[in-house]
Amino acid sequence: MGKAFLKQIARLMHQADPSASFAFEFWDGETIRFGAPPKVTMRLKSKSCGDQIISKGFLGFGEVYMDGNLEVEGELSELLRLGLAIDFDRHRLSLPHKLWCRLRALFKRSSRQGASANIAFHYDLGDDFYAQYLDPTMTYSCAYFSKPDDSLEQAQGNKYEHIARKLMLQPGETLLDIGCGWGGMLIYAAEKHGVRGTGNTLSKNQYAYARKMVADRGLADRVKILYKDYRQLRGTFDKVVSIGMFEHVGRKYIPVFFRNLAHLLKPGGVGLLHTIGKDAPSGRDPWTFKYIFPGSYLPTLSEICRGLARIGCCVLDVENLRLHYAQTLSKWSENYERNFDRIRELCDDRLVRCWRLFLNSAMVGFRHGESRLFQVLFSNGLNNALPITRAHIYRQ
Amino acid sequence: MGKAFLKQIARLMHQADPSASFAFEFWDGETIRFGAPPKVTMRLKSKSCGDQIISKGFLGFGEVYMDGNLEVEGELSELLRLGLAIDFDRHRLSLPHKLWCRLRALFKRSSRQGASANIAFHYDLGDDFYAQYLDPTMTYSCAYFSKPDDSLEQAQGNKYEHIARKLMLQPGETLLDIGCGWGGMLIYAAEKHGVRGTGNTLSKNQYAYARKMVADRGLADRVKILYKDYRQLRGTFDKVVSIGMFEHVGRKYIPVFFRNLAHLLKPGGVGLLHTIGKDAPSGRDPWTFKYIFPGSYLPTLSEICRGLARIGCCVLDVENLRLHYAQTLSKWSENYERNFDRIRELCDDRLVRCWRLFLNSAMVGFRHGESRLFQVLFSNGLNNALPITRAHIYRQ
Repeated sequence: MGKAFLKQIARLMHQADPSASFAFEFWDGETIRFGAPPKVTMRLKSKSCGDQIISKGFLGFGEVYMDGNLEVEGELSELLRLGLAIDFDRHRLSLPHKLWCRLRALFKRSSRQGASANIAFHYDLGDDFYAQYLDPTMTYSCAYFSKPDDSLEQAQGNKYEHIARKLMLQPGETLLDIGCGWGGMLIYAAEKHGVRGTGNTLSKNQYAYARKMVADRGLADRVKILYKDYRQLRGTFDKVVSIGMFEHVGRKYIPVFFRNLAHLLKPGGVGLLHTIGKDAPSGRDPWTFKYIFPGSYLPTLSEICRGLARIGCCVLDVENLRLHYAQTLSKWSENYERNFDRIRELCDDRLVRCWRLFLNSAMVGFRHGESRLFQVLFSNGLNNALPITRAHIYRQ
Repeated sequence: MGKAFLKQIARLMHQADPSASFAFEFWDGETIRFGAPPKVTMRLKSKSCGDQIISKGFLGFGEVYMDGNLEVEGELSELLRLGLAIDFDRHRLSLPHKLWCRLRALFKRSSRQGASANIAFHYDLGDDFYAQYLDPTMTYSCAYFSKPDDSLEQAQGNKYEHIARKLMLQPGETLLDIGCGWGGMLIYAAEKHGVRGTGNTLSKNQYAYARKMVADRGLADRVKILYKDYRQLRGTFDKVVSIGMFEHVGRKYIPVFFRNLAHLLKPGGVGLLHTIGKDAPSGRDPWTFKYIFPGSYLPTLSEICRGLARIGCCVLDVENLRLHYAQTLSKWSENYERNFDRIRELCDDRLVRCWRLFLNSAMVGFRHGESRLFQVLFSNGLNNALPITRAHIYRQ
């Protein structure tokens, strides 16, 4: 039933957005097309590819795509958007039950406790690979577009400033950055706000890079980079930030993360958690979990608030920046395609395609799907000396 | 053990804040005093009053105070603050277990499923009573102090404008205000932002007052006030707001409230929930539950986020305004004392004292205790056309 099943998906995509133009080209030359010319064409090389998609859902789609047995001409993100746009609940009654279940599994990306094998290649990626699509500050998290036409580098700087203002950083204060990546936040906070920074990472590449950047900028006396797990951090800090690291903690360790946080932030101190999350608990996307972020867990805002309350922290401010992450990923994708030749020199074709799919599916997830980006500001206990409005974040 | 127990409390209050000056005067003339002159003196008229406090905690304190058998000279709120300041966990080991449990029950205000009898007088209060301490717009919820020296009336106007900006109200849009009170938000939104408003209340006083205000201001064609329960509301609105009403829904009916909300807000529409809440679930204060807000339940932010997620809403922005409510209550208290003679004409002495204790204990709860004020902004499903920053809320 491979082809019939895939054609049914095409028809549902068309129903979901009748103005969309796209085509599926099958292994035997047959084509199903809606609108013309198609904005995106999916080309399947063999019947077994179709079967793999049908049996394994998005995991199968991803693997067939990585293997080069599924070619996409035009906008990959448009194809992913149309898949997400199908309203399965609406079609529940009009479709045979088995077909409905399979379709739902395909696009709703239900949970799958797959082993996280075959991901070693992820960690072999070097700084040079990331430099091909990140901005010059090597910031690997959601940027903040104050103006729609901000460049990626400007928007990453805006993000650091936005966080610095939320945290009300003052000269001489101590700032801990849990999961500091390539050191962008700490360098910004030390240079622009005069804080004394400490950060940790578990990536040797990031550790070496961040230390070098800190030394090159003459900040070695004020910014300390540690090669440590967050559970090994000691000391008490005026301010604590964690940007794009909490997603990797894993559900089981969320209480551990918060307990550590409670010790690291001084009473009355202010912290900011910047993390991808979801509105409601839902299954993992098994492809992303297997190939991109093994061990990850996307928390709900409810879980974050409960975790903070349990350690006696008081939520001051929450902002959902999902469309900023969509725009960030769009910029990363543009850079990725612009530097495509260099990227192909750096890694094999399978990884090249894997990363392209990751950037596109993540973007679609933030713009049309379940992904959110929460910035949660909190104080450790009550602090009645903080500004009572958020106007200081937006002063010119 | 009455006096010994109360003296122990005085000593713990002194330990919690050695700079505080206060005194307890007992029925037999004995006094325990810390600092001089005392900023606040608690005077107990009889041993049985002491026993009532010891056996019933804050409920007993409130009842003895209402009955006029406990007099407070100086700042009542300072006395309440010192009670809250005691660090019971620190004293757990140094106190006999039974004493610790009793002290904890006294100040931590543990849950008590008391019957909510004897509260009829609350609903007999007329508009004239509330007018003695509210501002001229008769707004009975947390104000927003853009500047520290804003008057109460300015701050209530600021609050309406703050909410209007968060909701991005546009001329011609429909706005539903669930639990509209005396109509302040709807009148503001119709006059300043040109919306067509609908609101409901279950208070006949508020219903009559709001309808008259709407008619007097020539808004009868644009603002509709309904005498209805929120479960009876019908229609679909561009924007929905609920200010200071969710506290009264009760825990059991939170899912019902949200299910109704889901039907009332159009897909992509924006809503704002403004409610008192807590960080962590905790017992009710039995005195307030019995005499001020029977049937009420203060939700955690986690519960609100989970409830919104379940109906497919996406949280955009959360702001904690607890110190604004402390300041609002402080202004209400000032008005209350200023108009004290008129208030005594309007109701009996027991109610006069009851309301004074309510205003003071609520203020202390926001400033030093567990009370929070959450403004939660959300969209019904995703809306990619909304502004992606919050700068519009803060433009001059």
